[in-house]
Amino acid sequence: MIITAPTLLLDERKCRANIARMALKARQSGVVFRPHFKTHQSHEVGRWLREEGVDRITVSSLRMAEYFAQDGWSDITVAFPVNVLESDRINRLASYIRINLLIESVEAVEELSRFLQYEVGFFIKADIGYHRTGVDPDNDELLNRILRATGNADKLRFRGFLGHAGHSYKARGRQAIEEIYRESTAMIAELKSRYIDGHPDLISSIGDTPCCSVMDEFPEVDEVRPGNFVFYDVAQRDIGSCGVDEIAVALACPVVAIHPERGEVVMYGGAVHFSKDRSTLPDGADYFGLVARFGAEGWSVGDDPPVVTSLSQEHGIIKGDAAFVKSVKVGDVLAVLPIHSCLTANLMNYYRTLDGRRIDCLRLADI
Amino acid sequence: MIITAPTLLLDERKCRANIARMALKARQSGVVFRPHFKTHQSHEVGRWLREEGVDRITVSSLRMAEYFAQDGWSDITVAFPVNVLESDRINRLASYIRINLLIESVEAVEELSRFLQYEVGFFIKADIGYHRTGVDPDNDELLNRILRATGNADKLRFRGFLGHAGHSYKARGRQAIEEIYRESTAMIAELKSRYIDGHPDLISSIGDTPCCSVMDEFPEVDEVRPGNFVFYDVAQRDIGSCGVDEIAVALACPVVAIHPERGEVVMYGGAVHFSKDRSTLPDGADYFGLVARFGAEGWSVGDDPPVVTSLSQEHGIIKGDAAFVKSVKVGDVLAVLPIHSCLTANLMNYYRTLDGRRIDCLRLADI
Repeated sequence: MIITAPTLLLDERKCRANIARMALKARQSGVVFRPHFKTHQSHEVGRWLREEGVDRITVSSLRMAEYFAQDGWSDITVAFPVNVLESDRINRLASYIRINLLIESVEAVEELSRFLQYEVGFFIKADIGYHRTGVDPDNDELLNRILRATGNADKLRFRGFLGHAGHSYKARGRQAIEEIYRESTAMIAELKSRYIDGHPDLISSIGDTPCCSVMDEFPEVDEVRPGNFVFYDVAQRDIGSCGVDEIAVALACPVVAIHPERGEVVMYGGAVHFSKDRSTLPDGADYFGLVARFGAEGWSVGDDPPVVTSLSQEHGIIKGDAAFVKSVKVGDVLAVLPIHSCLTANLMNYYRTLDGRRIDCLRLADI
Repeated sequence: MIITAPTLLLDERKCRANIARMALKARQSGVVFRPHFKTHQSHEVGRWLREEGVDRITVSSLRMAEYFAQDGWSDITVAFPVNVLESDRINRLASYIRINLLIESVEAVEELSRFLQYEVGFFIKADIGYHRTGVDPDNDELLNRILRATGNADKLRFRGFLGHAGHSYKARGRQAIEEIYRESTAMIAELKSRYIDGHPDLISSIGDTPCCSVMDEFPEVDEVRPGNFVFYDVAQRDIGSCGVDEIAVALACPVVAIHPERGEVVMYGGAVHFSKDRSTLPDGADYFGLVARFGAEGWSVGDDPPVVTSLSQEHGIIKGDAAFVKSVKVGDVLAVLPIHSCLTANLMNYYRTLDGRRIDCLRLADI
C-alpha cells in the first residue's frame, strides 16, 4: 500500500479482537448486546459484529438507521431524542424494520401520534447522572404523563428505560468508572423496579464504552450498547477503558516539515482529518493524538511517545524528544492514534486495512 | 425550504458583501488579492470571487487545487509545506496550470528535483511570528541553502516569501491585531529587502483574515491571501475581525429536547456537523456556537444570545435564559452560528442558500 496523503488505517485483527471480547462478556452476562454503530458507520465492520452473533444494533441518527437497514439489520434503536421533523424517515423505516425511538417529553409523543403510520417501539430516556438528556428518574409525574400519553398512542410500544452514563468519559481509572457504573445502574434498576409491574416486558439498557469495558459482568441491566470499543482511541486509553495496543485505527500522516530547534515535526493531518477533540497530558496540557511508528505488523507505540500538540485545518504539530525528531525525515509517514475515533472515522469516510483493502462507510454528504 | 435535519445555510447577500469589501480594499491598496479557498471549498462561491476580479487563488491541499483547476482556475498557490509524496498530483497539475508550492527545507527541494516534470513556482515559507511552520527570517544560512538548491533545480521558479500571521487568531481587538500586522509585515518586508537585489521579481505575501479585515490598506506587502472572511464565524467575531451580522453561514438545527430546570435546550447538531472548535466566553468558559433566530430575512442574533455549551457526536446543548427556553419547543429549528466556519463547511459538504438552492463543495471522501 502506498500512502501519499492522510489515510485512516484499520487494524482488522485488533478490531475483531475488541468485538469478540465484548460480545463474549455480554453473552456470559446474559444481557442483550446491542452495539452502537455510530463509531464505525460501516457495513463491513457491522458484519464483523454480526459474525459474533449480534442481531440488534444502536445508531445515532435516522439516516444511519437507513444505511444499516440497507445491509439487512432489522432491529435498530435510534439512541437520540427523537427528531419529530423526520416523520417521513421514521414512517419509512418503521414500515419494514423494527425500530425503537427515544422519548423524553409529552410533546414528542403528541407529534409522533400525529404522523406515525406503523408501529414503533420506544424507550424512555432516563438521565442516570450525565445530565445531557433524559428524564430525571425521580420525576414520577413526568414519567407517568409520558406513559399515559404513549398508552393512548396506538402505534407506540413501550420497550423500557434507556440510560447513558456519559459522565464516565470524564472519569480516570478503573475505580472511578466502576463507581459510575454502580451509581448509574442502581438508578436505572430502581426505575425499572417501580414500573415493571405495570409493564412486565420492559427492559433496562445502558451504554457507555468505559463502563462496558471495565466491568466484567452486567447483572444489574438487561441490555448494553457500547460503540467506541470496536476501535477504542486515545481518549479511552486515558480514561482507562483500554490499553494503547487495543486501539484499532490510526491516521497515516505524511511528514512535511521538521523544526529540530523546537522539537517539532509538522505533519499533513489536521482538524479536517482528526476533528478536534482533545485529551489532557499529565502536565495538564491539551493534546490531539499519539504518534506511533510502523513496523512489520502495523503500528506500535513506544515508551514516552511523541504527541500532537496542535491541529490546524490541514496541519498537525507533533512534539517529541530529540531522538524522535532526528529519526524522522520529510516524506516519512507516521501513524497517529486519534483522540476520538468516532469523529475521525466520520471525517475520513473510508478505511484502509493494513493490507490496503478499502472499507467504505456512511458519508454525511449522502444525507 | 423545509428543514428536517442539520443543514448548513449560506446567506449569499452577506457572503457577497464580505467578498466585495475585501476585494475593494485589496484593489485600492494595489496588492494582489489571492483569496484562500479552503473556507468555502466550493466552485460556486469561487465564481462569486471571480466576479470581483479574482484570478489567482490559494488552497491548502493538492486535491483542492485539482478541484478548483477543474473549474477554470489556472494560477493556484498551495499554501501548505509541499507534501513530496504527492508527486503525481504535482506533475499533473503543473502540466496544465500555473502552480506555486511552499518550500521550507533543502530536503523538500531535493525530492522535488527528483520528480518534477514541469515548471512550478515556489514561495519560501517564512515564519513571521506564528511559529507553526516556516523558516526563521533571520536564518540566512538556511535561506541561502534553499535558494542555492532551488537555483540548481531547473523546474523550480522562485516567486517570493510567504508568511501567515496565524497568531492573530489568539488576539482580541483591533489594537492587538494591528500590532501583529505591523510586526509580521515588518519581518517579511525586511526579508524581501535583503533578497530583492538577487531576485528582482520576488514578492511578499501574507494571509490571515484578522489582519486583512482590520487593516484598511496593505502598503507593506505585495499580496494578501485571507480566506475565512467570505463567511466569517463566531471565532472571528470574538477576535474582532467582523461583526456578528457579517457572519454568512449558520447551521439550522432541530430542537429535540428541552430542560427548563437547567436552562438547557438539546439540539440535533453536534461535532459531526460543527467539528469541535471552541471560543471563550467573557467568564472564561468554552463555547461551541451562538444561537440566532430566523426572521423574514434569514437569521439574526439578539442581545445576550444563547450559546452552545457542549457538543457530543450528534447533540448540542444550548444554554439560554428563561425567556429563551420558554420560547422554544420540540420540533423548532434554530440557527446556530459556528465557531469555525471552515471546519463546519468541510463537514457539511454542501450549503443551502436562504431560498433553498443547493451549493455543492469538495468532499474529503472524493480524495
